[in-house]
Amino acid sequence: MRLVTYAGASGPRPGAVVAGDRLVDLGDVAETVTALLTDAAALAAARARVDRAEAAALPVLDASALLAPVVPGKILCLGYNYRGHVPDGVDPTANDPEYPDVFVKTANTLGGPNDAVVIPPGATDVDYEGEVAVVIGRRAQRVALEDALDHVGGYTILNDVSDRAWQRRQSQWALGKCSDGFAPLGPWIVTPDELGDPQDLLVEVVRDGVVTVSQSTSTAIFSVAYVIHHLSQVLTLEPGDIVSTGTPQKLPDAQDAHRPLADGDAVTVRISGIGELTTRFTAAQEAAA
Amino acid sequence: MRLVTYAGASGPRPGAVVAGDRLVDLGDVAETVTALLTDAAALAAARARVDRAEAAALPVLDASALLAPVVPGKILCLGYNYRGHVPDGVDPTANDPEYPDVFVKTANTLGGPNDAVVIPPGATDVDYEGEVAVVIGRRAQRVALEDALDHVGGYTILNDVSDRAWQRRQSQWALGKCSDGFAPLGPWIVTPDELGDPQDLLVEVVRDGVVTVSQSTSTAIFSVAYVIHHLSQVLTLEPGDIVSTGTPQKLPDAQDAHRPLADGDAVTVRISGIGELTTRFTAAQEAAA
Repeated sequence: MRLVTYAGASGPRPGAVVAGDRLVDLGDVAETVTALLTDAAALAAARARVDRAEAAALPVLDASALLAPVVPGKILCLGYNYRGHVPDGVDPTANDPEYPDVFVKTANTLGGPNDAVVIPPGATDVDYEGEVAVVIGRRAQRVALEDALDHVGGYTILNDVSDRAWQRRQSQWALGKCSDGFAPLGPWIVTPDELGDPQDLLVEVVRDGVVTVSQSTSTAIFSVAYVIHHLSQVLTLEPGDIVSTGTPQKLPDAQDAHRPLADGDAVTVRISGIGELTTRFTAAQEAAA
Repeated sequence: MRLVTYAGASGPRPGAVVAGDRLVDLGDVAETVTALLTDAAALAAARARVDRAEAAALPVLDASALLAPVVPGKILCLGYNYRGHVPDGVDPTANDPEYPDVFVKTANTLGGPNDAVVIPPGATDVDYEGEVAVVIGRRAQRVALEDALDHVGGYTILNDVSDRAWQRRQSQWALGKCSDGFAPLGPWIVTPDELGDPQDLLVEVVRDGVVTVSQSTSTAIFSVAYVIHHLSQVLTLEPGDIVSTGTPQKLPDAQDAHRPLADGDAVTVRISGIGELTTRFTAAQEAAA
């Protein structure tokens, strides 16, 4: 299933997308997508409704009504998690760190697939990071590696927007990662049964028509299963939480041509089996305190 | 005023402590302490009720009913923010960093004044950090330095419990800072009118009857006003958010005698003008996934 949260007449509602562009409302099955992921009976009811849906009789999905698919209680992100290109004969795992490097994006960073990211006044080096975001479906506390994927409710896309200038100014990255709206999420959540192997996805970023990132999740250092297992040893992951799995490096040409994001830019993150998330960037209106 | 959240018969309720140990219920004035801080009329009504309260006619505060005074949308913390001792003739500001080092504690870390901290299984180096925690009372977005304190709703105490082993393993500290319950908060919020100058408070930590930290907030590198101003340039602070202002170093003898926290330990953070927060530490029960 592809689960969405959309703006209904009386507030956000869960739904599913079928046949590419048709919307199955699930607002009577559960209040939120997170509630749906948590409740096996509700999830089964949703699945039954999706399975018997007749696309022609359904409303066309209004993409402009899509909201962030979940409102996470926490957003945990990985730093360096993809191996770079190495010359023939060099062990690609030689520089693998022993542990994932984990940081947090705060609640104010969450954005939906239709929200523009406002470049904060004075920000001079805002960048994008296209990532597979894991949505927790079942509470995970000290889970074994072999059970870890049972706690995944689905997969979506996160653009880990980053202000590199702030990121460089301190040892900790919070101020480079936590500006308002710096975590666009969506457009939907693909459930694990539909996605297949999360370590066999192509992560790409397209900017100004140019592919700037293109790398398979098979080159990730830490698998989704490992990351869930690992995090759950230290803290409890709750349904709706997001674990974003890090970005591959930009392609060499894109690194050379890189310039900070500016007013009017648009960045598309596309991931095979999930979909694509396009985010517009706009200049801040100078606001008074 | 000293604002508390306490466990009432039908759920958490806001209140105020008067005459040291008497409780004024404010559940009919606002739903939560955060709502109270945000609403000038409600705050004035609460103040009027506190001012005319007759202590003898009020119930005695049941300290065991106290909960975390707010449920913050985000908890932002400072790393190194107190100057150490320097020899005579050495400029104490010589090693001041240019910017505060900021990290995040996630929602699962929040604890109340009566919650024990469970030492996670396998954790070998859990430590305490006694800190003045600022509670945001009014939304702060790009506020000027001279206006920053207008956005403070009050002050409380946070023990920034830290797993030093995890903190050392990565460049980012999240896994050392974000275990469940690692942010005990309370016991109450002292409003700015009652506290006075936040840069003239004595921060102390007492462990096993020994004072291990004792330093004035006058030795902080970045003042509360500066930190609010600074953070608000990068992200929006919302009512109820916590900004924890960092811990002074342990006294030299306490550094020498330090051992990681263990089952049965208790740590008291006491701050002049605010009060004290005592946290018990317990060993984890090994739990199945």
